[in-house]
Amino acid sequence: MATKKKETKIKIAKRSENFSQWYLDVIMAANLADYAPIKGCMVIKPYGYAIWENIRKVLDGMFKATGHKNAYFPVFIPESFLKREVEHLEGFLPEIAVVTHAGDKKLKENLIVRPTSETIIYSSFAKWICSWRDLPLLINQWCNVVRWEMRPRLFLRTTEFLWQEGHTAHTTHREAYEEARKMLEIYRDFIENYLAIPVVVGKKSESEKFAGALKTLTTEAMMQDKKALQCSTSHDLGQNFAKVFDIKFLDKAGRKQYVWQTSWGISTRLIGALIMVHGDDKGIIIPPRIAPTCIVIIPIWKNKEEKVKTIKEAKKLAKTISSDLPFVIDDRDLRPAWRFYEWERKGVPIRVEIGPHDVKNNEAVLCRRDTGEKITIPQDKFTSCVTEILESIQQNLYSRAAQFLKENTYEAKNWDEFQEITRNQGGFIRAEWCGSTKCEQKIREITGTTIRCVPFKENKKCGVCVYCGKPSRYKALFARSY
Amino acid sequence: MATKKKETKIKIAKRSENFSQWYLDVIMAANLADYAPIKGCMVIKPYGYAIWENIRKVLDGMFKATGHKNAYFPVFIPESFLKREVEHLEGFLPEIAVVTHAGDKKLKENLIVRPTSETIIYSSFAKWICSWRDLPLLINQWCNVVRWEMRPRLFLRTTEFLWQEGHTAHTTHREAYEEARKMLEIYRDFIENYLAIPVVVGKKSESEKFAGALKTLTTEAMMQDKKALQCSTSHDLGQNFAKVFDIKFLDKAGRKQYVWQTSWGISTRLIGALIMVHGDDKGIIIPPRIAPTCIVIIPIWKNKEEKVKTIKEAKKLAKTISSDLPFVIDDRDLRPAWRFYEWERKGVPIRVEIGPHDVKNNEAVLCRRDTGEKITIPQDKFTSCVTEILESIQQNLYSRAAQFLKENTYEAKNWDEFQEITRNQGGFIRAEWCGSTKCEQKIREITGTTIRCVPFKENKKCGVCVYCGKPSRYKALFARSY
Repeated sequence: MATKKKETKIKIAKRSENFSQWYLDVIMAANLADYAPIKGCMVIKPYGYAIWENIRKVLDGMFKATGHKNAYFPVFIPESFLKREVEHLEGFLPEIAVVTHAGDKKLKENLIVRPTSETIIYSSFAKWICSWRDLPLLINQWCNVVRWEMRPRLFLRTTEFLWQEGHTAHTTHREAYEEARKMLEIYRDFIENYLAIPVVVGKKSESEKFAGALKTLTTEAMMQDKKALQCSTSHDLGQNFAKVFDIKFLDKAGRKQYVWQTSWGISTRLIGALIMVHGDDKGIIIPPRIAPTCIVIIPIWKNKEEKVKTIKEAKKLAKTISSDLPFVIDDRDLRPAWRFYEWERKGVPIRVEIGPHDVKNNEAVLCRRDTGEKITIPQDKFTSCVTEILESIQQNLYSRAAQFLKENTYEAKNWDEFQEITRNQGGFIRAEWCGSTKCEQKIREITGTTIRCVPFKENKKCGVCVYCGKPSRYKALFARSY
Repeated sequence: MATKKKETKIKIAKRSENFSQWYLDVIMAANLADYAPIKGCMVIKPYGYAIWENIRKVLDGMFKATGHKNAYFPVFIPESFLKREVEHLEGFLPEIAVVTHAGDKKLKENLIVRPTSETIIYSSFAKWICSWRDLPLLINQWCNVVRWEMRPRLFLRTTEFLWQEGHTAHTTHREAYEEARKMLEIYRDFIENYLAIPVVVGKKSESEKFAGALKTLTTEAMMQDKKALQCSTSHDLGQNFAKVFDIKFLDKAGRKQYVWQTSWGISTRLIGALIMVHGDDKGIIIPPRIAPTCIVIIPIWKNKEEKVKTIKEAKKLAKTISSDLPFVIDDRDLRPAWRFYEWERKGVPIRVEIGPHDVKNNEAVLCRRDTGEKITIPQDKFTSCVTEILESIQQNLYSRAAQFLKENTYEAKNWDEFQEITRNQGGFIRAEWCGSTKCEQKIREITGTTIRCVPFKENKKCGVCVYCGKPSRYKALFARSY
């Protein structure tokens, strides 16, 4: 058989041997992204961007359904704005990209390429908000941000990345906190039910919270190397920024008050999570609900006559696929195995094979990307089978990840146990903590683990701190992390 | 009646008295955008951004339907990249924003915030393209760009703006030129059939073409002040960038060849066009096919009982509206006139009034934003009437603008006529031109008009140049422009 295209072998490292090489190999093999000729920046290729478009579409719908509106604010932030909130400035200063010139003229004031937009957005909020009638103000922005990255890693840490940042203002602290919780819940829902990634939800410690926030809420997922990845954050900003940007409203009694605020975001980092949670040694596996292509149909032939027949049959089958399921017919003049591998590397959930034998028997062979299982089905059951199997793959990816998370989460009752787990098993460790930053730092120095969050469900004192032995205030989740 | 919200009068200048003040007033009155605290930058407010989202959605569908794929390339361009294509550099140098520092460290090489992405994208193309099988490569990107603006004007000229830029590579010049024409035709289709703006399509003169292109194709529209606005451009780049970035492919005969390229784009400037073509002294008028809200239903009452009844009726009516037509029920405790004016300023195509009298008679009053016409209709005809009237508004806005364009387009047979028209009437002037940049410059110096394009249909020699009297090569379209 003619193989017109040069079939170059694509090598993917084994997860068990070199996880971080595997991660890069998988991205290259699926054509998701590439490093750009600018330090730490990436090019998101069409297939990677299609995943981002799906993430964006679903989340945007969720934001709008809860009353949020999109807007757009400048990419540039006057240096003086960033300096107004001291903690905020200190958090971002080492990472900022500074514009000093326009054309060949030096600017009077340097401009910062936004690392996040609290300051520039809140200078508008101060103009927009007058009375309690203007509240809650629920704004979201999809945009690019820049944080200078010394140790870049595609999707996980890049100098520029794409994200959304929600920014809201409320009349009471209670309402603002409820908003922060609501958005975290939307993230959890999306990450678990679309990306099929189980997460632990909770509160960040003081030292891990967002620069300028009162509290940071987070969703933490476990990658296959047992390290944690923060998938989304939602911040209770209190009145910190309101005071600095003078965002006041006239309450019902006619008194001027500062608003209470939140901000929350997810980024292209989620694609990194997707890869590291579901991928196998053959490449990425994309959960059906977020996959740019859910089904690839591959006609298989040995001669011209068979080619015509199987392609015709493939097209006939394709017509019966539900209109919301994106599919591709791959009838390129390449060896079947070659086509199989390409779509495997791209993580397409279902591969359908149609050979001359299948045409004759009115059958089709369905192959699941998650398990590799092959099922021969009668063509008249194709539509329902495909839908069922996609659902089953979505569920299976989640269960598998949930099982992995469960199996690799440990309870450490004392410091010996804690150290032993970090040395031997890795994974997530649930342990009691007195709440002091000092213990948190010591634990990090000795074991390399940080507090990923204080899970909501376990936010109460129980016994003694795993490190210092003093009465504990929290049960925290520790792990090495990205 | 209680009017709980403070009803501040919003003033809009008359178009006939001060068109440019009117333009700004309309934007403020509709809450579309605002200047940001950074020179020349704008904040796109939710209502303005919703228009952009609709523009983006429709065009993105058109791009994808013609085989283009979205991707994302870095916001930063190494200074050396921009310098590789000399004309390109010279065109953009005065407008560039330069990043010189990351954190507190000076960068080894300055980075430019993208004013357009040819150079950074084509450095990727050089890696992606190997053989004729990789062509055509059809890529699009939705992003922000920065061009330093000394005389900013909301939506029309801002230091940062949002746009899409298509970038393609082909095996032959013919195919590339066809692509450039195809994308111009998509733009024309979109601008005429969705934005209801009639355009003249044609080729730019040498002095007006894109820096680095062989040819620039354009769509030019007439604003209500009779000035021209370039709505979209599509460039035949030839092999200029291919040679500079070494983008070669192996042809079928096994020879290395440079690719042929195009780029094309539209921006948030289209919102400016929309305002200046359709708006009236009451504010913006948004064509139904692109309107964030097509219908506003306003219940009208004098007492509590009537309030309950009319709101109930409004909700009943709303349920019968076709699901693809976005609507709002405005039942705020504000005087009806106040609510009317607000939605008028926002340019919502149809206002529906429901008073106690209408409830009793099973009627509703429909008011067209384009003509102000009021029609009382039986409620059982509501669904079909609304759909018909929206279609009629869409057509009427187009016809009105087409009529205006026709009435204000003149033929100048000689230099006296040309000068007389520019002095007295303004508008578009069709006149013969010898093709020399010298004549073009003289005409500009004396009359303030530039060649907007050489319309495709009239691209042939006819008589003598309107300025120098030498044999003409083209019939060109002259106008003052934005």
